[in-house]
Amino acid sequence: MTDAQLNLREMLNVIRPTTIIEAPQLSARLGAHVILASETFQYTGSFKFRAAYSVASRVPQDLLITASSGNFGQALAYACKLLNKSCIVVMPTSSARVKVDSVREHGGRVEPVDTQVKSRAERVKEIANQHPEAYIANAYDDQFVVRGNSTLGAELFALNLDADIIVVPVGGGGLISGIIVGFGHPNRKTCIFGAEPLMANDAARSLRCGKIVRNEQEPQTIADGARTLSLGLLNWEIMRKSISTIVEVPEEQINTAVNLLFHFANLKVEPTGALSVAAVLSQPAMFRERTVCCVVSGGNVDPSLYARLLVP
Amino acid sequence: MTDAQLNLREMLNVIRPTTIIEAPQLSARLGAHVILASETFQYTGSFKFRAAYSVASRVPQDLLITASSGNFGQALAYACKLLNKSCIVVMPTSSARVKVDSVREHGGRVEPVDTQVKSRAERVKEIANQHPEAYIANAYDDQFVVRGNSTLGAELFALNLDADIIVVPVGGGGLISGIIVGFGHPNRKTCIFGAEPLMANDAARSLRCGKIVRNEQEPQTIADGARTLSLGLLNWEIMRKSISTIVEVPEEQINTAVNLLFHFANLKVEPTGALSVAAVLSQPAMFRERTVCCVVSGGNVDPSLYARLLVP
Repeated sequence: MTDAQLNLREMLNVIRPTTIIEAPQLSARLGAHVILASETFQYTGSFKFRAAYSVASRVPQDLLITASSGNFGQALAYACKLLNKSCIVVMPTSSARVKVDSVREHGGRVEPVDTQVKSRAERVKEIANQHPEAYIANAYDDQFVVRGNSTLGAELFALNLDADIIVVPVGGGGLISGIIVGFGHPNRKTCIFGAEPLMANDAARSLRCGKIVRNEQEPQTIADGARTLSLGLLNWEIMRKSISTIVEVPEEQINTAVNLLFHFANLKVEPTGALSVAAVLSQPAMFRERTVCCVVSGGNVDPSLYARLLVP
Repeated sequence: MTDAQLNLREMLNVIRPTTIIEAPQLSARLGAHVILASETFQYTGSFKFRAAYSVASRVPQDLLITASSGNFGQALAYACKLLNKSCIVVMPTSSARVKVDSVREHGGRVEPVDTQVKSRAERVKEIANQHPEAYIANAYDDQFVVRGNSTLGAELFALNLDADIIVVPVGGGGLISGIIVGFGHPNRKTCIFGAEPLMANDAARSLRCGKIVRNEQEPQTIADGARTLSLGLLNWEIMRKSISTIVEVPEEQINTAVNLLFHFANLKVEPTGALSVAAVLSQPAMFRERTVCCVVSGGNVDPSLYARLLVP
């Protein structure tokens, strides 16, 4: 048994397995055989619970501090609740209200930060100085995060989906690097592609330049999970060896993908979660008639934003 | 192996197994341990595909005729496409455009009927007279429908959920009677409850009277799948022996249930599909601290209606 399989077996006591959905009408519209691997029903509504539980259960500290626009924060709060630990979550003032409320509901402490004035990292540093006993958890650039997310890769491998391509939303690179690690050898027939917003395309630019390229400031893409300044170092080191393609998705196609998933898969997704389907939409020739596993990373979206996306 | 298990094994080549979702935040709000059994990811977006495929595959006729304003029509059209059969679906001229389109997309022929001028039943009769070779498919009062829906009962039994109560939306009674048949002996510890709109409570009234009671006209509940005039005869005969409780749900709680499922389970449901969760909401004492399996029967809802439910 490989390390990834052992890790998965251990974590399966806690995480929910991913939900596989096949929707023929969606596939017909996308011109590809699309298999959705939805993390919207994972605990706290996104894959981040895999990462957060992995970190919170593996570090010795009882207090964890992190910066998160949403999903990692609520996941960490819930993981800490399950493990009788505490956490402080630095959240931009622009974060979705539902995400802020959820962190608090799970017993997490929220520290707001106006990212126009001060970076999340600066605010985390301030709070960390007040709590030298705490573990500073990075939502992606952390070995335990990658290890936690690798469980999804191991699951997809074990499911034998026979996919030509797995498409994964990319923000800081935590999910895609985890999937690379968990899925296993890069020489198998399945390719792993990234999908990121065109207006937050630092990962695609990094791939082109052969080194990490940073955004000047947080890009205001509707895919709020991809508003990261750059890939994590650890994530980049894993990605650069295995990833050849990151599809850059225009905002309009993210909106369309949210709608297609509503209409033809009955799936409620957040814009970041729709990036993988949006990638197929925006580059049809790349995916035509292939078997494509689209990872839907999360479903947490404000009802008013979601209603506007459905009925513009 | 029982007949229900054999039937399930045969159908599992074609249907999607139900999707089990546990959402701790939803359970906390409902004061019960709620397990969702969601049929929203079934082919064509509702449990009706189980029924439709069962009918279309088991009758010898190559042409099927039905009347449906919604889920059964789409399901039958898709089942007939898979089986290389044909179908005609009588749909009121007031039907949602998306539903008409969906029947057509699956190769079904749509026969519009202006229900102000002529009843659906009359129109079906006219078309049946033109096609004496056709099978007239009823969406619930049909042995093949019950047999098809029994696969969900057999699945729930096989899953060993250890539920105290299974709650099932009731319209014509096709789903609940199928679940009774498939789940097996009524002497086991799990009770099966119905959930229907208070303003379309003919099933609850039938149970109280000991005979089928009909609505005067189609009740205009938001749960459009429960706008049936009465239970089917076959369905009633099965229900009367096994069902002691049908929860009558006010419209407001159907709306609230749709919202709770959106917020705390990331599940997009149609109002009829939310009836089971709405039942738990409206009768908290009946369900408190019990393990309750809520069957979510379908997810097909018009985006504008859904947006209004989310942001009134």
